[in-house]
Amino acid sequence: MELGLYTFADVDPNAVDKGAEGARRLANLMEEIALADEVGLDVFGIGEHHRADYAVSSPATILAAAAVKTKRIRLTSAVSVLSSDDPVRVFQQFATVDLLSNGRAEIMAGRGSFIESFPLFGYDLDDYDKLFAEKLDLLMTLREEEVVSWSGETRAAIPGRGVYPRPLQEPLPLWIAVGGTPQSVARAGVLGLPLALAIIGGQPRRFAPLFDLYRESARRANRDPATLKTSINVHGFVADTTEKAADVFYEPQAAVMNRIGRERGWGPTNRQHFDQSRGPEGALFVGDPETVAEKIVAHHKIFGNDRFLLQMAIGLMPHGEVMRGIELFGTKVAPLVRKALTPAETGA
Amino acid sequence: MELGLYTFADVDPNAVDKGAEGARRLANLMEEIALADEVGLDVFGIGEHHRADYAVSSPATILAAAAVKTKRIRLTSAVSVLSSDDPVRVFQQFATVDLLSNGRAEIMAGRGSFIESFPLFGYDLDDYDKLFAEKLDLLMTLREEEVVSWSGETRAAIPGRGVYPRPLQEPLPLWIAVGGTPQSVARAGVLGLPLALAIIGGQPRRFAPLFDLYRESARRANRDPATLKTSINVHGFVADTTEKAADVFYEPQAAVMNRIGRERGWGPTNRQHFDQSRGPEGALFVGDPETVAEKIVAHHKIFGNDRFLLQMAIGLMPHGEVMRGIELFGTKVAPLVRKALTPAETGA
Repeated sequence: MELGLYTFADVDPNAVDKGAEGARRLANLMEEIALADEVGLDVFGIGEHHRADYAVSSPATILAAAAVKTKRIRLTSAVSVLSSDDPVRVFQQFATVDLLSNGRAEIMAGRGSFIESFPLFGYDLDDYDKLFAEKLDLLMTLREEEVVSWSGETRAAIPGRGVYPRPLQEPLPLWIAVGGTPQSVARAGVLGLPLALAIIGGQPRRFAPLFDLYRESARRANRDPATLKTSINVHGFVADTTEKAADVFYEPQAAVMNRIGRERGWGPTNRQHFDQSRGPEGALFVGDPETVAEKIVAHHKIFGNDRFLLQMAIGLMPHGEVMRGIELFGTKVAPLVRKALTPAETGA
Repeated sequence: MELGLYTFADVDPNAVDKGAEGARRLANLMEEIALADEVGLDVFGIGEHHRADYAVSSPATILAAAAVKTKRIRLTSAVSVLSSDDPVRVFQQFATVDLLSNGRAEIMAGRGSFIESFPLFGYDLDDYDKLFAEKLDLLMTLREEEVVSWSGETRAAIPGRGVYPRPLQEPLPLWIAVGGTPQSVARAGVLGLPLALAIIGGQPRRFAPLFDLYRESARRANRDPATLKTSINVHGFVADTTEKAADVFYEPQAAVMNRIGRERGWGPTNRQHFDQSRGPEGALFVGDPETVAEKIVAHHKIFGNDRFLLQMAIGLMPHGEVMRGIELFGTKVAPLVRKALTPAETGA
């Protein structure tokens, strides 16, 4: 199983000098990605937002910088809001990241959890699903064909035109990211595309039927099982002790969840709820390396997932603590998980 | 006067493995930008094309990688085809490069010399100038306002929405690049934006009236002279001897000019024409460091330009020769030019 990290590069939306705040966060982010690469993590993901509280609106731009600062780690969006972007531009940008990284780029496409990008780019939320379906179809066409012929209703037709540059990986990896909508899960299966499921609340095990739906949808569409992969993307943090992990992570993560919650009408979170969520059945992967590794392994047994991505840098987390968390995730958690998932040798 | 380089990252359009060819070229390009930074050049520009013979369709993606590989050099597009892109995305991408580079990003916006991008992104060439004028207006608004209100005919209106991230430089530098159209030159002057003029044929001195038009247009619009800057962007190459510079540069540059010429109905070029063009009155800046420095200084006396950008990596130029050319440009040409343009000390 691949292990990795993702972040939206949170910044203080009330910073007086937003440029300086953004520059600080991106400099730290570059160090975090470089360390994740050094300690042998498999994937780093960067999300797309169009809000004052996040520094990244263009994941590929950040990933291009990360490409030349790293050697091994795979670089993905987490996610690209495909619905409100142009698939040709997205493909070109990620093909460029793929060339710069020697074949380590991936696109993780989603419909968008936040919806700020729709009015900003002139899209109608009434077309929420149609936009995604059509743009995903175009993006898949761009992966398959160098000279592209495509037409639809949400974007100008392309009558047999070359799209460049071409990526090193053929095809450029494309994941579908979903929040839990069964139709989205089934679509990924029907298309034979890898599926990433964000689990940021509730009991993760309750999401298991979605993985069954995904695999069953793919089977009915006669998709090659080799093209099917699954990931779970969760919130969590690793520190030297479980107590420290909880104390460092609680406030920044709660501040973000409460801010989003106010916008969406969720009730406020609190420390008690947080402590419950970091138990074996809860959605948060917070603790010392052993605790987090055990929880990752237990959920792998439920989901059979191929990838596990952890959002540690959420809210205004101290950079030094995030760096220590990355180090522990790569040097302690990853070996424990890999050992637990290696089939026991038979005989001897 | 600032001295710099620009390139479109030419690749072999007939390469069997286009991914490998693109990866090779971008790896070399990263070395070229890093060297330009090391030898003290002031600017590196990356062009946007949507063709099989160029590896860059997204300048900001390349510049983001360059941002974390360099320390001092300014990073610009050369050019961004603003007419067929979304100014919000362009602004966001270059703001990101600005944050990654600690304030070294610039946008050089143009209407597009090649026109492949128009049908690819669903634009009508009949709107060639209107698209540019409106999108430039939006881009200028994005530079000035964090919460943007804008409406026009070529792009969805933005009713008071925040656009993030904000750059470190306020405002993010924006140049207008023109090919010689007087209306475009006058527009840059009226708007008080820096002007880059591409001179890739004929006698450069004949373009001098365009600089007069620019300055006069700015004066009549009461623009602050401090905001007015000019650049000339030319083809050329530096080697240890003038003979070598000409021999290395001729074939790759001629191949490109002939390929473009066939598409545009120009007559073919030849070595005799090339040799004439690299004389003191011609458009090519090719030779040993002294020859090129003298020509740069002579044209600075005509134009009073603030910046000089040289396209050395044009066509399938050998990487090693380009690296030597960059070294000579930074360590030999630049000191000669700077010395010649430093006012002689008076008194003593």
